[in-house]
Amino acid sequence: MPSQSLEYPKQPYSTVNRYDSRASYSLETIHQIINTSPVLHVSFAAPGGGDSPFPAVLPMIGQMGSFARPSADTGDVLDLYLHGYVSSRIVNQARGAGSDGEEEEKKKGLPLTAAATHVDGLVLSLTPNSHSYNYRSAVLFGHAELVTDVAEKLWAMELITNSVVRDRWRHTRVPPNGAEMQSTSILRVKIAGGSAKIRSDMPSDEKADTQDAELVDRVWTGVVPLRLTAGEPLPAPGNRVSEVPAYLREHIGEACSGFEVKP
Amino acid sequence: MPSQSLEYPKQPYSTVNRYDSRASYSLETIHQIINTSPVLHVSFAAPGGGDSPFPAVLPMIGQMGSFARPSADTGDVLDLYLHGYVSSRIVNQARGAGSDGEEEEKKKGLPLTAAATHVDGLVLSLTPNSHSYNYRSAVLFGHAELVTDVAEKLWAMELITNSVVRDRWRHTRVPPNGAEMQSTSILRVKIAGGSAKIRSDMPSDEKADTQDAELVDRVWTGVVPLRLTAGEPLPAPGNRVSEVPAYLREHIGEACSGFEVKP
Repeated sequence: MPSQSLEYPKQPYSTVNRYDSRASYSLETIHQIINTSPVLHVSFAAPGGGDSPFPAVLPMIGQMGSFARPSADTGDVLDLYLHGYVSSRIVNQARGAGSDGEEEEKKKGLPLTAAATHVDGLVLSLTPNSHSYNYRSAVLFGHAELVTDVAEKLWAMELITNSVVRDRWRHTRVPPNGAEMQSTSILRVKIAGGSAKIRSDMPSDEKADTQDAELVDRVWTGVVPLRLTAGEPLPAPGNRVSEVPAYLREHIGEACSGFEVKP
Repeated sequence: MPSQSLEYPKQPYSTVNRYDSRASYSLETIHQIINTSPVLHVSFAAPGGGDSPFPAVLPMIGQMGSFARPSADTGDVLDLYLHGYVSSRIVNQARGAGSDGEEEEKKKGLPLTAAATHVDGLVLSLTPNSHSYNYRSAVLFGHAELVTDVAEKLWAMELITNSVVRDRWRHTRVPPNGAEMQSTSILRVKIAGGSAKIRSDMPSDEKADTQDAELVDRVWTGVVPLRLTAGEPLPAPGNRVSEVPAYLREHIGEACSGFEVKP
């Protein structure tokens, strides 16, 4: 555990400009948002250089971790591990990165941005302009490389599988066989910077509106909490385990355990 | 309503390469995924050109629509309207776009990619490698420009507000005053291409695993449905409307009306 709360250095690309009182550069805060997001949107410059002006964006599963210096503390300096596919564009680019000796940048790996946003509530105020969400969003910027070490790859696959359902890995057929190891790719993203932005509050209106009695008597204001919840598990046609296992029940129970919005 | 189901043309940047049987280029499918996502991740090349190798990503609220040719049909050719802020980087860039006469690309507006992903379920199979999500994801590629026409801006603000809570706009203090119009920016994104990817199914395992009796007797397989649900509305300290209004109840009721996953 780090002896003090670590923060990512503010970079021009990572500094929050709007509502900067909602910003955080804390490793722990950012890593928590990333780790609890079931999917990340991973953006990178379109393959082939200037052919397309639009960044590529892929939804990927990711988890923070450190294989070189194992740690379960989200406040530590960690890498982002992403689950990809051999044939997917991002993996091909990460593989290509480093082969071109001309650009120092390329040697670091494929530059990418990973984004996660949890929408925790609808914030309904007196005027459309002061409407908002309660939310937790995070972006991480870094360079991605393909994980080639088998031990690290297996470690990251277990980390990612258990992030989807805690303790799932050892309750399945493991380890993956040769074909499975071949067809799955893991990217390790060395983080260069990051930031988070959080709103968790009741609506806030201008004085001119809160003093308008007709308006206040007419418009309901408050927060509608939102949460990703799990429903009753649906067994597959081929499933022969009659009871939903305890580790899965527990995992789902936590996903359903009420709303976390603190208004 | 279009006389036939329209599709976005496949572009090199928009073509789904992996699991292309899950891909869709249907305007209606893509627009529905975008419209039902409470937040979009909007990516664009970092401001200042080559200063940062990482794309910028901002969470923004967006809705498909057409002011020039009003249509409520998501299968129509539509623009993407995004809600931003005057001071935010993306709006500044969109404002700057077009001022540089040297590049044809710039005249079209700021190139960006908008991404939305709904995670509908955890797909738990016999092996980690065949684990998956049920999901609906979409990306749209296009050029963004600032909306300067007041009528179009008001129309888009109402469209976006009512996407958060249906019918909310007219139940608040409208229209926005001068300061509110100044401080809010709307971007109109002319769409160049897009694609969606959808999985909505039970797990699928290799024959070698499904024929392994010990394994099948041991591992629970199936789908855990996930859904963004709304909790009981929490009134603001200043709220004086004792009953949650019917339009809001209805909106929340739909958000809570059970799981849509079709396994």
